[in-house]
Amino acid sequence: MRTVTWDPETPSVRMIDQRFLPGELVLIDLWSPQEVADAIRQMSVRGAPAIGATAAYGLALAGQLSKAQNAQELWHDLEIAADILRRARPTAVNLSWALDRLLKSAHATFQEGPLVMRQRLVEEAQRLADEDVEINKRMGGHGASLINDGDTVIHHCNTGALAAVDYGTALGVIRSAHEQGKQIHVLVDETRPRLQGARLTAWELAQYGISYEIITDNAAGYFLSSGQVAGVFVGADRVVANGDVANKIGTYMLALAAQDNDVPFYCVFPTSTIDLSLSSGEKIPVEEREPSEVLDLKLKGRPVTPEGSQARNPAFDITPNRLVTAFVTEVGVLRPPYSEAIARAVKGAQKK
Amino acid sequence: MRTVTWDPETPSVRMIDQRFLPGELVLIDLWSPQEVADAIRQMSVRGAPAIGATAAYGLALAGQLSKAQNAQELWHDLEIAADILRRARPTAVNLSWALDRLLKSAHATFQEGPLVMRQRLVEEAQRLADEDVEINKRMGGHGASLINDGDTVIHHCNTGALAAVDYGTALGVIRSAHEQGKQIHVLVDETRPRLQGARLTAWELAQYGISYEIITDNAAGYFLSSGQVAGVFVGADRVVANGDVANKIGTYMLALAAQDNDVPFYCVFPTSTIDLSLSSGEKIPVEEREPSEVLDLKLKGRPVTPEGSQARNPAFDITPNRLVTAFVTEVGVLRPPYSEAIARAVKGAQKK
Repeated sequence: MRTVTWDPETPSVRMIDQRFLPGELVLIDLWSPQEVADAIRQMSVRGAPAIGATAAYGLALAGQLSKAQNAQELWHDLEIAADILRRARPTAVNLSWALDRLLKSAHATFQEGPLVMRQRLVEEAQRLADEDVEINKRMGGHGASLINDGDTVIHHCNTGALAAVDYGTALGVIRSAHEQGKQIHVLVDETRPRLQGARLTAWELAQYGISYEIITDNAAGYFLSSGQVAGVFVGADRVVANGDVANKIGTYMLALAAQDNDVPFYCVFPTSTIDLSLSSGEKIPVEEREPSEVLDLKLKGRPVTPEGSQARNPAFDITPNRLVTAFVTEVGVLRPPYSEAIARAVKGAQKK
Repeated sequence: MRTVTWDPETPSVRMIDQRFLPGELVLIDLWSPQEVADAIRQMSVRGAPAIGATAAYGLALAGQLSKAQNAQELWHDLEIAADILRRARPTAVNLSWALDRLLKSAHATFQEGPLVMRQRLVEEAQRLADEDVEINKRMGGHGASLINDGDTVIHHCNTGALAAVDYGTALGVIRSAHEQGKQIHVLVDETRPRLQGARLTAWELAQYGISYEIITDNAAGYFLSSGQVAGVFVGADRVVANGDVANKIGTYMLALAAQDNDVPFYCVFPTSTIDLSLSSGEKIPVEEREPSEVLDLKLKGRPVTPEGSQARNPAFDITPNRLVTAFVTEVGVLRPPYSEAIARAVKGAQKK
């Protein structure tokens, strides 16, 4: 089952509302680019590849809804919709990447008029989603060799089928190794504040029949220093030219603990997550979300924080390239020096 | 108000049941060493110094309850009670330290008979509790100079009045700097799984009028790398001969992130937390607690983890001495090399 799909009949974007997992599998239909942007912002869908595909469908929807009579008018409507979608979340670059790809494909048919442009947007969004699944499986294949039979690995956030159109990035690698018959045990970082690990990764692993235990994020260092962990696998929201990585908050501290114990730290992402326009990580915009995500927590039915408490809630952090053992992409496993490897990977992906 | 007190009338041990904070300030009376041990185990009281004082009162209670007719019989009852109390929690060495101190004081009056021994136990427990407050204030004085006016600091777990008899260790240092008129802002690690930061430290800071914001534990690295943080302050549950530190889970990753950004990392504890019998940190027994502490979490009223999920729940981790900038104790601020500094500190404390 795909995380997000296109319904050509209505037309609309249908997706799993991940906020209700693991308790309920709720499907929602989105009828406008604004609704799609809201769903991305409130994290009904999350994960860099999934956000990209969803935004692409959102722009296809804008094309379908537009009452434009000519290419110029349609282009104007598309630009407005793209702007709304682009602002939904700032850190994952796949969002912009997907929108730019769709705008480019629509622009290429500008001379053929609005009907062709509209059709082209839908086709391109579908193609992007199909490719995402294929790319994820290719990453899984490349990365599976990094996991040995009997390994215990640590995983942060959710990078599974739910974070992509299907299959997943870092969790896709684990899944691929599992499908090869390797026995794997996953220590699942719960991933505060939104608990994507405890909620979504645990749910996916249970479905795949992969053994797991949930740990608090701050316990990863204990297990890494215990010698029980063979590798750490995470995804990425944006990787810049020098190989610095923006990923879910907590990734940086996890990478430090892996390095301090000589445990390999792998970062798995499609080349659409690469942003060559930024030279290093400190230039990546880091989204700071609502304090309520940190504060609205109950333990045994009681509110945890004193009334009137404030919170800071950065959703991502930056892991310097020096802490990453290797990148896994659809064009292969990349090793340092990363500037060269990343530039080559982007070129390699463009050729296909 | 003290976290734990002795009621000579009944006799009983009266304490704040910290599990109900910040919602309710609940006081409980404990009538037997077994009840005291249970209260320590279930974390109605927690924090190394507070556990020590509570165990001391627990042993004084054992003396009062004993029906022994002679010193030998009383000693036997005390040994049984000490054993029950000692096993309540394995990592904080203050527990054993307090029990040994009380046993020693009782043994010193062995020749004077059971009545004097009983009385001596109560006096020694009272003295230990009084000294704890005094020692905490002295640590606060020594450590306050490490904080400058306008500083933002990160604090992990709860090390305030609630973690001691009164005043606190690391939070005592922050409080002491605040009392000197320095403007301080505290980023409070929420401290999963029991959320002592979000519940107890936030509650204490609000009472003292110290500015704070709560963060998820995994966000500390983001703030440390942002250049906004002047120092990190934590307590300790056991510090061994070489200066390795057992402290609340998450301390190790926090220390790594501080070091990676050249932010000073301070560990504040009384010399009663030092265990010279162990040469290095990997020999410290690390308590692993119930998985339910990790799993029993609700977000917006919904259970977070899939049914049947397992968890691992180590309550402490070991921070190697190389990551610690300085120790703050009641005999002063200790700098590397730590083996010598710690040995000197223990000798200095014994002289007083």
